[in-house]
Amino acid sequence: MRTRYYIEDAARHVDREITIEGWLTNMRSSGKIIFLQVRDGTGFMQCVASKGDVGDETFEAAEKLTQESSLRVTGTVREDARAPGGHELSVSAIDVVQVAEEYPITPKEHGTSFLMDHRHLWIRSSRQFAVLRIRSAVMTAARNFLDSRGFLELDTPILTPSACEGTTTLFETEYFGERAYLSQSGQLYNEATAMAFGRVYCCGPSLRAEKAKTRRHLIEFWQIEPEIAYADLNDIMEIEEEMVTAMVRSVLETRANELRILERDVDRLRAVEPPFPRITYTEAVEILKKAGADFEWGSDFGAEEETVLSERFQKPVLVHRYPREAKPFYMEDDPDDADVTLSVDMLAPEGYGEIVGGGQRLKDLSTLSTRVDEEKMPRDDYEWYLDLRRYGTVPHAGFGLGIERFVAWVCGIRHIRETIPFPRMLNRMRP
Amino acid sequence: MRTRYYIEDAARHVDREITIEGWLTNMRSSGKIIFLQVRDGTGFMQCVASKGDVGDETFEAAEKLTQESSLRVTGTVREDARAPGGHELSVSAIDVVQVAEEYPITPKEHGTSFLMDHRHLWIRSSRQFAVLRIRSAVMTAARNFLDSRGFLELDTPILTPSACEGTTTLFETEYFGERAYLSQSGQLYNEATAMAFGRVYCCGPSLRAEKAKTRRHLIEFWQIEPEIAYADLNDIMEIEEEMVTAMVRSVLETRANELRILERDVDRLRAVEPPFPRITYTEAVEILKKAGADFEWGSDFGAEEETVLSERFQKPVLVHRYPREAKPFYMEDDPDDADVTLSVDMLAPEGYGEIVGGGQRLKDLSTLSTRVDEEKMPRDDYEWYLDLRRYGTVPHAGFGLGIERFVAWVCGIRHIRETIPFPRMLNRMRP
Repeated sequence: MRTRYYIEDAARHVDREITIEGWLTNMRSSGKIIFLQVRDGTGFMQCVASKGDVGDETFEAAEKLTQESSLRVTGTVREDARAPGGHELSVSAIDVVQVAEEYPITPKEHGTSFLMDHRHLWIRSSRQFAVLRIRSAVMTAARNFLDSRGFLELDTPILTPSACEGTTTLFETEYFGERAYLSQSGQLYNEATAMAFGRVYCCGPSLRAEKAKTRRHLIEFWQIEPEIAYADLNDIMEIEEEMVTAMVRSVLETRANELRILERDVDRLRAVEPPFPRITYTEAVEILKKAGADFEWGSDFGAEEETVLSERFQKPVLVHRYPREAKPFYMEDDPDDADVTLSVDMLAPEGYGEIVGGGQRLKDLSTLSTRVDEEKMPRDDYEWYLDLRRYGTVPHAGFGLGIERFVAWVCGIRHIRETIPFPRMLNRMRP
Repeated sequence: MRTRYYIEDAARHVDREITIEGWLTNMRSSGKIIFLQVRDGTGFMQCVASKGDVGDETFEAAEKLTQESSLRVTGTVREDARAPGGHELSVSAIDVVQVAEEYPITPKEHGTSFLMDHRHLWIRSSRQFAVLRIRSAVMTAARNFLDSRGFLELDTPILTPSACEGTTTLFETEYFGERAYLSQSGQLYNEATAMAFGRVYCCGPSLRAEKAKTRRHLIEFWQIEPEIAYADLNDIMEIEEEMVTAMVRSVLETRANELRILERDVDRLRAVEPPFPRITYTEAVEILKKAGADFEWGSDFGAEEETVLSERFQKPVLVHRYPREAKPFYMEDDPDDADVTLSVDMLAPEGYGEIVGGGQRLKDLSTLSTRVDEEKMPRDDYEWYLDLRRYGTVPHAGFGLGIERFVAWVCGIRHIRETIPFPRMLNRMRP
């Protein structure tokens, strides 16, 4: 294949002539010199063309280029400390691919609804470029961490005959005459693969038809969910700590430029090192009460409580041992305290709240069986899950990390709608 | 975290005492010595316990263990060329976690329907263990290849307002009062992210409500779909070749034991090196006709034709330039031949057929716009896609690789239902 050059590799090509294939983001001309801001998907670069070097015809054509016109620019890479990326291109030739129609997204301010309607174009702007490149680094880092620890990626199904977490927020479809639901979590299936493969994870979309319109909710969101046979609550708290640390470090190392674009306070991210603070749910409730919150022991934390808690720590905090009624049916009971479960949520600092949820799973057949009946779950649909406790049950634990919430925290942005290429929200599934 | 030992790492622990945490797959006792076959999800190991070493009580308890009982076995790793994995464990202690109920899957033959009903347990058997560990290596190798080439993983949505490839095989759901469809491909969205990020891929589930009951079809299957801005048909043929080669090599290197379990002829896999043979669709039709097939130029190949073609080559073959009517609306026309498109399918050898499909995408706004109307597609839903041709359109190309078909070929197994942990097929969505 012909050699391709990308802006992110400019430092490797100093003083050499290369061709950048990209799009024009901005331009100004002095009449003799024209400054073209070009993006190619890997970065942004200033390309400087003089009338003398490129000729009158090309120069005049360049002056007429509109925003987002596609073009190939050939020139020599020069080091320039003043340039945004540290390099600029001294242009010898310009090959216009298409002069774009008048681009709807201009440097002026646009409303969120307008930008969301133009999401397919909005992702070209520098802020979205930064956020989504960080998202991609986050996904890669999560997988690389788990792969290096011997976990196997094994996919879990989207179409299921039964509900994993409650039935009120399920999307339904018809499956050859039967009713099917879209998966909200791969966890139950993960438990089966963990019994077969020891350490597993799934990574895919989860779908919840939640009527919530908050800055923390998406209808369609991605989770990475590891599950480990022969593991307990302490084991997964340690792995969560190490995994989150590895992911943050990887973003700091590979996405420094993107964090700069977002003006992220990277010292806050550099502080993310084990050990993370650990508090029990009960201790968390005391903190909330001292802070004046009107909160009763027993219910799950909402966004408000998570914000209060996560603002009190410099690092992510592990809140463990939630009450039974605040957690799903499959959580293992704490042998030392019948009121609580061996569950743990990780809350990101700076008010971001829950990014990881997990725990140890009920191991005992008769206890689990009773729970299935108590929750009035369709027993037939869960016989396979109960089988995991009939045939060689073992202590096991796992967790789910929400990609979009994690990315929002690492990027330091307020709303998770910007952390996925095409967000699905209440009343929004276009484009 | 406490040090964990896994069977796959046994070679690193020769002559050291370790504890394996796993399940019993088989056992025989001579009365004085007991041979326990133990699996831990990473491999299988023979553990040898003598009455003298473990004591009468433990020995007798071990003799009563049932298949798939969970247990921790402590002992010293011994090299033994006769042992299946090259090592065995000289047991000093056994800790039984659970004596399993009578296990439904016994070493005797079971029917496929029975095994599929017990898929959550069937995956524990050695053949399924091998296939799914190869699947996981295939996914990792595909991503690692693309990551190393500078591609960004950017997810595309499952819930969409419109159909990508025909409307007859779509799953439908209600999205807050609107009709939504489950995605059959991330490609159209990939084209938007490719214009923003240059080189992208998505990897996720695709859903097709196809009434086909063949060994090559799943209702829910996984694809990895790369898309490249400023690329043409030749570029993607080269990348497909390199990617498939890298994936096969990675399986050969990291899953030698699993290929042995499956008795795969690895020489057939070792032959997979660039360049792959390339033939046009028209040449393929001639081959079919010479082979006596009743086939007319113009239609797409079915399983039968693909089998004939792919049996003629020792390597995967690239069949390019399919007729317009055999390919979706977004394929670029061949400038040298108005009847065909710049499309390409890769057929795996040994009769496996299509594993990759792709091509160059229509670049011109008015041509694409006409096609959308000709196909009677709801225009409003495709305006965003047409925008990609309004604002800096560029030559671009991409492809989709079907994970399950790829795994079936590499494993040398006939039916793709074994290549995914929980297959969804016509009338089958349990467990």
